[in-house]
Order: sequence, then structure tokens, then C-alpha cells
Amino acid sequence: MVKRLFEVDPWKIVSSSLEKKDKRLQESLTSIGNGYMGMRGNFEEGYSGDSHLGTYLAGVWFPDKTRVGWWKNGYPEYFGKVINATNFIPVEVYVNGQKIDLANDFIKDYKIELNMKTGILHRSYSLIKDGNEICLHFKRFVSLTIKELALIEVSAEMLQGEAAISFVPLMDGNVSNEDSNYEENFWIEMDRGIGEKSYLTTKTIPNNFGIEQFTVTTMMQTLAEEAESRQTAEKAMQVREEINYQLSTGEKACVTKLVSVVTSRDIVPEKQKTAAALILDQAAAKGPAELEAEHIAAWAERWHKADVVIEGDDESQQGIRFNIFQLFSTYYGEDSRLNVGPKGFTGEKYGGATYWDTEAYIVPMYLSVADEAVTEQLLKYRFDQLPGAFHNAEQQGLKGALYPMVTFNGIECHNEWEITFEEIHRNSTIAYAIYNYTNYTGKEEYLLTKGIDVLTAIARFWADRVHYSARSDHYMIHGVTGPNEYENNVNNNWYTNRMAVWELEYTLESLEKISITKQAELNVTDEETAYWKDIIAKMYYPYNEELGVFVQHDTFLDKDLRPVASLDTAEQPINQHWSWDKILRSCFIKQADVLQGIYYLNHEFTMEEKQRNFDFYEPMTVHESSLSPSIHAVLAAELGNTEKAVEFYARTARLDLDNYNNDTEDGLHITSMSGGWLAIVQGFAGMRTADAQLSFKPFCPAGWDSYNFMIKYRGRLLHITVTKETVKVVLVEGNALTFKLYDDVYELTSEVSAAVQQTVKKDEF
Amino acid sequence: MVKRLFEVDPWKIVSSSLEKKDKRLQESLTSIGNGYMGMRGNFEEGYSGDSHLGTYLAGVWFPDKTRVGWWKNGYPEYFGKVINATNFIPVEVYVNGQKIDLANDFIKDYKIELNMKTGILHRSYSLIKDGNEICLHFKRFVSLTIKELALIEVSAEMLQGEAAISFVPLMDGNVSNEDSNYEENFWIEMDRGIGEKSYLTTKTIPNNFGIEQFTVTTMMQTLAEEAESRQTAEKAMQVREEINYQLSTGEKACVTKLVSVVTSRDIVPEKQKTAAALILDQAAAKGPAELEAEHIAAWAERWHKADVVIEGDDESQQGIRFNIFQLFSTYYGEDSRLNVGPKGFTGEKYGGATYWDTEAYIVPMYLSVADEAVTEQLLKYRFDQLPGAFHNAEQQGLKGALYPMVTFNGIECHNEWEITFEEIHRNSTIAYAIYNYTNYTGKEEYLLTKGIDVLTAIARFWADRVHYSARSDHYMIHGVTGPNEYENNVNNNWYTNRMAVWELEYTLESLEKISITKQAELNVTDEETAYWKDIIAKMYYPYNEELGVFVQHDTFLDKDLRPVASLDTAEQPINQHWSWDKILRSCFIKQADVLQGIYYLNHEFTMEEKQRNFDFYEPMTVHESSLSPSIHAVLAAELGNTEKAVEFYARTARLDLDNYNNDTEDGLHITSMSGGWLAIVQGFAGMRTADAQLSFKPFCPAGWDSYNFMIKYRGRLLHITVTKETVKVVLVEGNALTFKLYDDVYELTSEVSAAVQQTVKKDEF
Repeated sequence: MVKRLFEVDPWKIVSSSLEKKDKRLQESLTSIGNGYMGMRGNFEEGYSGDSHLGTYLAGVWFPDKTRVGWWKNGYPEYFGKVINATNFIPVEVYVNGQKIDLANDFIKDYKIELNMKTGILHRSYSLIKDGNEICLHFKRFVSLTIKELALIEVSAEMLQGEAAISFVPLMDGNVSNEDSNYEENFWIEMDRGIGEKSYLTTKTIPNNFGIEQFTVTTMMQTLAEEAESRQTAEKAMQVREEINYQLSTGEKACVTKLVSVVTSRDIVPEKQKTAAALILDQAAAKGPAELEAEHIAAWAERWHKADVVIEGDDESQQGIRFNIFQLFSTYYGEDSRLNVGPKGFTGEKYGGATYWDTEAYIVPMYLSVADEAVTEQLLKYRFDQLPGAFHNAEQQGLKGALYPMVTFNGIECHNEWEITFEEIHRNSTIAYAIYNYTNYTGKEEYLLTKGIDVLTAIARFWADRVHYSARSDHYMIHGVTGPNEYENNVNNNWYTNRMAVWELEYTLESLEKISITKQAELNVTDEETAYWKDIIAKMYYPYNEELGVFVQHDTFLDKDLRPVASLDTAEQPINQHWSWDKILRSCFIKQADVLQGIYYLNHEFTMEEKQRNFDFYEPMTVHESSLSPSIHAVLAAELGNTEKAVEFYARTARLDLDNYNNDTEDGLHITSMSGGWLAIVQGFAGMRTADAQLSFKPFCPAGWDSYNFMIKYRGRLLHITVTKETVKVVLVEGNALTFKLYDDVYELTSEVSAAVQQTVKKDEF
Repeated sequence: MVKRLFEVDPWKIVSSSLEKKDKRLQESLTSIGNGYMGMRGNFEEGYSGDSHLGTYLAGVWFPDKTRVGWWKNGYPEYFGKVINATNFIPVEVYVNGQKIDLANDFIKDYKIELNMKTGILHRSYSLIKDGNEICLHFKRFVSLTIKELALIEVSAEMLQGEAAISFVPLMDGNVSNEDSNYEENFWIEMDRGIGEKSYLTTKTIPNNFGIEQFTVTTMMQTLAEEAESRQTAEKAMQVREEINYQLSTGEKACVTKLVSVVTSRDIVPEKQKTAAALILDQAAAKGPAELEAEHIAAWAERWHKADVVIEGDDESQQGIRFNIFQLFSTYYGEDSRLNVGPKGFTGEKYGGATYWDTEAYIVPMYLSVADEAVTEQLLKYRFDQLPGAFHNAEQQGLKGALYPMVTFNGIECHNEWEITFEEIHRNSTIAYAIYNYTNYTGKEEYLLTKGIDVLTAIARFWADRVHYSARSDHYMIHGVTGPNEYENNVNNNWYTNRMAVWELEYTLESLEKISITKQAELNVTDEETAYWKDIIAKMYYPYNEELGVFVQHDTFLDKDLRPVASLDTAEQPINQHWSWDKILRSCFIKQADVLQGIYYLNHEFTMEEKQRNFDFYEPMTVHESSLSPSIHAVLAAELGNTEKAVEFYARTARLDLDNYNNDTEDGLHITSMSGGWLAIVQGFAGMRTADAQLSFKPFCPAGWDSYNFMIKYRGRLLHITVTKETVKVVLVEGNALTFKLYDDVYELTSEVSAAVQQTVKKDEF
């Protein structure tokens, strides 16, 4: 069920219609961020209708005590929540003392436009009030070059009439979270002050879990043309300024609110006021125009490396650019203490900062579209959190390391037991990202010095978590939730078992390469490796001979198996229409499960195996996880089902733009923002990198004229263009490279813009 | 791990030692109640050390909003909590203005004694303070004849010295619950007043779930000998009186605090003050001595019908009497809106009033030890709650009725999904109680007029809850939690499947007997019955040929199967030492699961089947549910394993007295209080009643000289005495009766005290 609020446009998220009933959806889709902070598309002038305020700071969170009816040993003590920070968006506008409020006021020529090329959000309309007509324009961005800085410009032009116009830039610390269960306030005021620069310092309330109380200083300074009068005011948790103009027909007034935000993650509380003021001074010295130019240039630099151009299909073009824009707005690798939050700066649902999504879906894209350093930061994040992972395993009474399903700090921050205790397959994906990085970059240093610690710790977890079933002479893994979260507490989830064995194999293989010092440090005994080998040899994998498919888990085939096509569309998404009981017992699959394993270990399976499993599982898959369509797009493309591949592409790339899952009002699906890219590059272009071998098998989707994209690969920069007829691979930068195109081996010499051109092999599909 | 705080005594819970570190345990074990209200063994004079205050009123509760990290469709909106009501226990005692506090004061000759024969709690000690020695005595009971009345007497005797002694009877509405997650206050004050009678009226805070806000008026009047002075005082949520004496050596002073408690369950708020005063007037008119005599007489009447006498083993004697005493203190069938709460009036853990425990474990005992009317009230409770059961099924998207796992009002009040959604076997036990009552009493009226509604509604639930597995041509029940709560979300739990089919069979059979009017009302179609019959014919039951056992669920045999004996005792109870993950994956069984089915449908299985299943499952059973040992005692006895049967008897009968599960400090295990009785009557005496046939196969446990008990059966009162050598069955009341003793049929004529005497058949065991 598609709901499209914004127009199709290759570079813009733009609409000329204020849809009050979909205000939250508009806010989600016009979110902006710079990795350090960000916000939903809330209106500067305020809005009294239904709305979801959201201003978030990366790494600023709160541990909320776990509350359950029935405590179970091993539960995490808290649930980590993304929390709203001081709302610095507002610049209220008053006309003759009356506050503008689009929930009630009459307007025309409304337009909202998020320019993805520049990262700037514009909004304008003409207000008809008391016989006056006033054109208002709002512009804002969070700077890519000065992370702590946001700029909000509001201008008013009197088209007809005469009125007193007041702008009221304010900052409000009295914020709370939208959440189904709680009504807490997370902040207490520590300090505030008004003047040329006004500020508010707030601190998170104490907690019992030893988690840092974050202190945040938010400071504003408003640049304004000569005004009739200006005055500042304050009250608990709020500072504000009022800037008054008297405008006659044809006259304009404009204010620019500069905001700096510093947190105790970087600046100790006692120095925050000074630091915040310094940032404002620097910004004011540059002036709005230069700040904007710098910001646009930084976005241009990112786009240069990562843009995917699609000719002939603006919907698809808009989708992939929205994906890239929002992903980069969330994370660009500057801070190894951060990760890719599930909602980024666009919402607070789910809580937590880090999911396995990062390693599963985000790492493969960053490896190709950004410098290796970005991915290295993501790996370092997990290495640094090893102590937390040891803690999590110990909580379960298990050896080794259990990486968290959801975390800010390495400790498991989610407290639903089927996630916390059971969705342990995540552990193998942490290991897989190490393999992915090492195999993709060809650099073994991380693996041998840090990665091996992670691998060994995870291997020790698996070795303790399996059990030996004497009756069947196999090792088994009981009581897990696979990637398909529409089932849980299943036994011998094929994916979990297979990836656990893969992890043991990769660890054993990697242990062969480490230094003697590292060997001594890790102290993996012969008994251990012998036991790991025994597990590898005797792991149980559910398989059905008759169907020729890997079975999702022990009793999956006993279900009432039927295709999604047999469901009434009114019952979908089933997670919004069915009870949890009904969902769990059904055969319907939330996201790739067996197929996720086939995606990861793609080169290990025959085309026939892939086909049989895809044909068996995909029809039962409801794709109600944002992470589902991309993996299916890649596999469908590989299997020559180009039509389905394109359909899945649309579903992942335009998931939020078209609100496929009917939940975008809560925020965007940030961790699946790489899905469109994976569908194009690994799907349509068929890029594979297993065993240090780069290869492509491209086709051009039916509705497209052509597409082209850049990838970074082992120091090279490659530009790949796929049209209906030809594939062209250009070596833009770097040394000579051997790669495969449709199974033919080519070598690109290191000459400038060396290129290979091939005919698209349509019979492959 | 036994912890025995009180001495062994056939009629008393008595101790001469104040164990401060086990204060909570003492409080649980000295709880008293009268079905209407009750309280833990908190000290009247107060106690500043670790303690768990608890004063509870039957049917007064609060719906606490469900709070979870991740909402699932179908969750109950609230969790029903037993809440503390106005604490009316206190009578503080001051010596020369200093408050007595046994946490700090020096005392000797301490004695606490709960007399189970009379239902009166006594406590006394000599206080050494400021060179004085004062003997204090406390006595209290909640009246069995005037439900709304409690009496608390405190006396002081100056053994040596001279001092000012003040008694301060007070009532405190500022109470809260001890709970792992919440710190709420549930009450607001509506009114209070002081005078000869002082009172406090409180009301539960509002809720969003349409649940009644309870209003409670608690009123006190203190009878005291001539005092030096008396004065009353009040503050928010508290009223108090002070009664002062000056005592010299040999002098005594005594006060008697009468308390009446009325609630909006029975009396509208505006009439509560009058009603409470009237009760106090009536009580004062009778005077303490007569009130006590009446109360003792009422307990004697109950004991006359229900006492189980054990000669030669005071531990066992004390255990069974404690069971009967606490069960009767909780519920004696006066009010069909009430049920047998899991903690009765002894604690607040678990919340809720009603569990399947009532039908599974309590009904069989009440059928034998009390008038049929008591059991009828319990059945009526479920009939009256049919609308709630329909609601619960609808919440899951299912037809028919799903009785709640935990409730006050018929709506599911528990919000852990593995309980709420999955532990659906409870439904069959509700039906089984109807069978049990009908078969035991021989009265079909309830079945045919009301029970059939319940049966049909449950049958409709099962018919919708099973699914047909095409691959195996069987009906299956996936995603359940069986009676063994140490596993969940299992498939084809043998017990659940078997009992569901039994329920369908019993419903079909009962439908044959109902009136045409009732048929029209229920409108069970031919399609429905045909479908039910198909389910009966094709239900899947996991069975292992090689072992000859019913398999607990589909994949149980894949576990690492090992006996409890292989566990370190330091790891037990595992629910206090292991993570939930480890528990779920282990083979260890919390309570009878397959064996519960064999217990219910006992006559359907051969002795060989019983033996094989018992021998397979019992060694893996940790009996960490209070409901486990009794069922195993009955089966062990039947299988001739008398030693084990006796061991299980001790574990159930003395579960709390010996704190086997190390959790009695939270309150007593009220719903398992029938376990000792079941072990003796159904176990040692081998009573069976299936197919309207009464039979016995008694033996006398090794350590006992003899035992005897009464049972009511179809209008008769029978007295059964079992010694080492003989069994004697006496018809105390009622018509001639045919019954079996060791497979021999006897007839007792209706002559006065007709008796049958038989030699104990030792070779049977």
C-alpha cells in the first residue's frame, strides 16, 4: 500500500501541498542530519496540530530501567533510549501579535523542499491574515563542515498590507519522547542565560546503571537586519528572543538563527559555554552565505564519490539518492564511538544506536562508496565494545562474547527476551563484516591485530552455545530467533547453524595467520580447536530432500504453508493487523532467513540450490522488515528474475518515500537505506567480491535507459555504466586491475580512464 | 535446601527465636486471613528492620498499565495487581516515650505462635529497657464469623520496675507494594476522622481501563481498661490514638483494637462509614471474649469436616494442617466473585487473583473436604467470566473462549506473551473441572445449564487454534507453553494436544444431553461437530516407540537429556541460578507436563505406560513449581514407589514451612496448599473417582503409624482410617454406598457408622 506524499524529482523531496493528516510522515521525510546531530522536519514557527517533535544528538541517550511483569535471569537491566534534546528549531512568527500556526491559518503557495544535493531544507508559503498577505520562507541546515552548528533562516515579505511582524527564535529544553509506554522527562536544567547569545545547559537525569549523565549546552545567536526592537526573555528550560519589524507592502525582513550544540561526550560541562560561544563567533564571522557554500561543497564531495545516476526513471533516481542522502546524514565515519542508528536523527522508535543491520547491510555499501576509513571506524566500534560482549555472554551463563542486538555501549540494551537471549545469529554477522572488510580491501592488518580477538571471542561463544544431541549424534542450536523475527524460540534455524559454523571455520583459518604474540595473548588451546572442528563436522542442518531446500528450522514444514498471495491485502502488513500469536504460528516470513545465508555465502551454493530456496521461501515472505527487499532483489537478479528484482529495488529504495510499511511517520528506516544501493550494485550490476575476485554481471532494468555508479575497490576508483546494450567499466583512479565481466576476465591498465566495454549479455537472464 | 524457621508441632506454627535475617519468612508463615481480608505476620509494634508489610482485601486490585519495550498486538493492556490496603495492624508501644522496636531492643523469652486450630496469632516477649522488665503479649485474628472484623489485643505487664507505657493503635493508608519494577502509590485519601471510632476512607487512583476504583473504609475502636489519659490524632492518610498508663511492678495494662473494613465491592462509599461503625458496635457489644469464642468455634467446624490426622509423624501432621489452614484462610466459597489467589493474603507477588491452579489442584480437594456449594462457587466464577474469555480469544484473533492465565475479572491480566498467548492449555483444565465436579457429585444440572456454555466456547477456541499440516495429514497445535513453564513456544506439546482433544470429546458427549432450548441457544452446527470429530481423529501426538513414552513436544528428545541428579545442588533452584536462556534450552522440567495429563486421564493409561513415562520424566523434573510434587506423589504412590511418594508429600505439604523453593519470604504458595491433601488422599489412600466409581488402594507411609481423614462423596460423609495393617472405611453420614477397595467391591449400608475393614495389601506396592 503506497502512500506518496512528495513529488517525484531526481534531486528533491518536494511538495506543494500541506497534508495535515500526514504531518508526521512529512516530518520524517524532511529530516536532516550531519552525523553529529539532526532533526525531524518540524516547522520553525510551531504547529499545533498532530506532530512529532524530534531533535537528536548522536550518542546522547538514556538507560531506561527494564520493566516487566515477570523478571527473568539474564535480562538487561535497562533499555537504551534515543532521547530528544533541547529543541532549537523554533523561530516563531507573529503577525500583529498573533502567532502563525499552519494548523489553523489560511495559506497559499505552500512549498516544502529538501534539496538532497545541498542538504538544505526550504519551506515557503503565503499567509493571508487580517487582510494582509505575507510570504514566509524558511531555510535550514545542519552544517557538514562545523558539526556543532545549525543554521535556520526565516524571512518575511509583505506582499500586500502592513503589519507588525515578530520573529521569536527560541530554544526549549522541556522536551520529552513519544513512546508507547512512558511519559518521562529525561532532562534537568543546569544553567541558562540570555543576551546576544542565549543558551541553555541541560543534563540527563541520574540513572542507576553507571551510564554517563550527558550535559548539553545549546546556544543561539540571531543575525538580523535592523529591527524596530529586540528583546530577550527566559523561563525554566527556555530562552527566547523577540525581534520586531513593521512591514509595509513590498518590504522584507529576515533573521538567521545560528545554533551551536556541544555535549559532554566531547567537552566537559564547565567549558561548554565557552566552546559553544566560540563556534557561534566563528560562524558569525564567516556569515551565512559562506557557511552555506561550505556546506554545499561538502555534500558535493560526498556525492561525487557515491552518486548513482539512473537515466529514464526519476522515481528510482529519487529513491536511491534519498537512501544515500539519509544514510550519509546519519553516519559518515567521523567518530568511532557512533554507529548507524535505526532511525538516525529522524525518530526515536526502537531505541538503541547499533543493530546487526550495520554489519549486514551498511558495511558492504560503505566499503564501496566511501574511504576505507569509514568501514574501519565501524569495525573499531565493535572491537572497542568487546568487554560489553563478554558481559552479555556472561549474563546468559555462557563463555566468549555475545554482541548485543541493540546497544549504545556494547551492553545489550534491548530487553525483550526473544531478541536479547535468542536472536544470537547477530554474532556471526559481526564476524562476517570482518571477513567482508578484509576480503574487500585486501588488508589483513585489522584482522590479525584486532579482528581475531573478536572472532575468537565469538567462536568461544558458539562452542558453548551449541549442545550435543546424543540421540542424533549432531551438534544443535536450540532456542533461537533467526533473522525472521516472525518466529522465535525455534530450534536449529538453518541460517544460525550455518553461520555459526562459518564463523568457526573463518576463525580457525584466521588463527593460522596471527603472530606468536597474538597466539599467546588469545591462548586458544588444542582442545578448543579440536572441539570447534568437531562442531563443524557434526553440525545439524535441517534439510528436506523432497523439496531440495534448506529448512528454516526444525518444524517449519509442519506449518500451514501458503503463499502471501493467499492473504487478503487488507490484513497486511500483518504486524499491524494480526495478533503476535497468529504471526508467530504462521508460515509468513518477515525478512530473508535461509536466503540471508545464501546471500552471505553466495559462492558456496549452486544456481539450482539458490533457485529452489528462493522459489520456496520468497512467496511466503511478507517483507515487513525494511531489510528484506534488498536481499531478495540481489538474489532475484542473480536468478535472472529481473522483474522481481526491480520490484524489490523499488520497495527498498522508495520504502519511506512511498511509506510501504505504513510506519514512516515514526521515522525513516535508516539501516535499510543501503538496500537500494545493494539492489543496484550487487543486484542489477551483479557485483561480487568473494575470494578477492571482483566481478560483474550487469543488466539494465526494463524501465531504465541506463545507470552508472562509482565504486572504490582496493585503492582504485571505478566507474561502471550500464545501458541497455553495453557495460562500460572505467578505471578512474588507481593501479591496474583484473576483474570479471560475465565470467570473462579483463585487465584494466593503470592508464588514465582505462575502460572496458562489453555487450550486455541478455541471455544470462 | 530446607530452611525451617518454626518448630515441629501438630497444631502450631511456633518459634522461640526471633530470626531477624528471616523476618520476611516469619511474616509469610504467620499470615492469617478469613477469605475477605488478611495480612502477613507483621509486628503490631512496628519493626524497623527488613520486613514486608502486607494487608490485603479480597477482590481489591489495580490494573497496572502494561509496559514493554516492544508492543505486540494482542497484549493485555494491563497487569492486574494485588495491592496493599490500609495497614490496620499497628499498635505501637512506647516505654517512657521510647518506641519499642525489636530490630534494636533487647528482649528475652520471645515466642510467636500461630494456632491453626483457632486461627489466632500470639506473640510475647520480655523487654529489658531502662532497668525495667516488661512482658508484652500480642494476640490477633480476623474473624471467621464477622468477615469485616479484625481484633488485635496488646497487653503489657510490668515484671520489674516502673514506667510510662503508651499504646498507639493506628491505621495507615500510606502503603505501597513491594515489587521489582514499580514504585507507585495506589491510593488517595477520600475522608478520615478521629474520635471514639477513628476511620480512614481511601480510594484507588483512576485507571484508563474501565476498572472500578475501589473505595475502602477502615475504622477502629480501641477497648481499654482505665487509662491515665487517651488522645487521638490524625494526619494525611493516618489516624491514631494514644492510650497511656503508668505501670509499677506487677501491674498490667491491656488494649483491644477492633477494626472493621468495608469496601465498595459490597457497600457504596457514602454508606461505608455507617456500615463500618455498625460492625464495630456489634463487635463491641459482644466483647472480645465472645468474638474469640465464636471465631474458634467456626474454625472447629471447618476442621471437623476436613482435618487429616497423622499419627507418628508430627512433621507431616503439621504440614497438612498448615496447608488446610492457609487454604481455608484464603477461600471458603462465600463469594463467587472471588477465587484462590496464588499468594492469598500472604503476599503480592504474581498479581492476579485466579490461575488455572484453582481448577487443577484446588477443586479436587474442595470437592471432598467442603460442601459442594464451595466448588459450585468456583465453577460459577468461570461461567460468569465467559465474556472475558471471549474477549481474550478475540484479542488473539481466534474464535471461542480463551480463559485467562491470570485474572481478576475474566480478562487476561498477565502480560508476558509466553503466558498470555501461549500457555493455552489452561483452557482444557477449566473444562476438566466441570467434568470433575459433575463426575464427583453426580449432579448434571450445572453441566447442562451453564457448564455446556463454557465447554462449547472452549471447543470453538480449540477448533480455531489447531492447524492442519498438509504434509503430515494431522492437526497440530504450534506455539504453546505447556505446564512446564521452563520451555515455551513449543510445538505439539503432548499434554496440550491430548487435553484439547479430551475437551472436544467431552463437549461432544455433553452436547448430546442438553435440552432443545439450550441446543438452539448454543447453535453448534453439524459442520462444527464434524470438524471437531476430524480433529479428534487426526490430532498429532508426539510419541517415541523406542522409549515407549509420550514426547513432551516435537523436539524435546533432541535436547541434552540428563537427570537432575547430574546437577550441582549449588545451582538449584535453577530459576535462581541460571539465565532464562539456559533454563529454556535445558531438559529440566519445572512441573508435571506429560505426567499432568496422565494424572488427569489416569484411567486411560496402562500401568506400564504410567511407569515408563514416570521413569522417563520424573528424573528430569526439578519441581520448582509448587504445583509439581503433589502430582508426582500421587503417581509415585500409584506405581508403588511409596518412598518417593512420601518424599514428594513432604515437599508439597511442607513446601513453605521448610522453604523448599527459597521464596516463601514473598508469601505462601496458596494454590499448592491442596498438594499435601492430594498426596495423602489420592496418593497414599489411592482414592479414585473416575466414571462415577469411588475406589481406594491405601498404604501407610513407612514413618507413620496411621492416618485418617474425612471425605464428602455424593451426599455421604466417609471416614477413612489407614494403619500399617488395616484400612477402615466408615460411613458417617448418608445413604448406602458401593465402592472399591483394592479392586474388591464393598457396599456400606446406610446404618449409622457402617464400616468396612480390610487388610492393607502390601504386595500392591
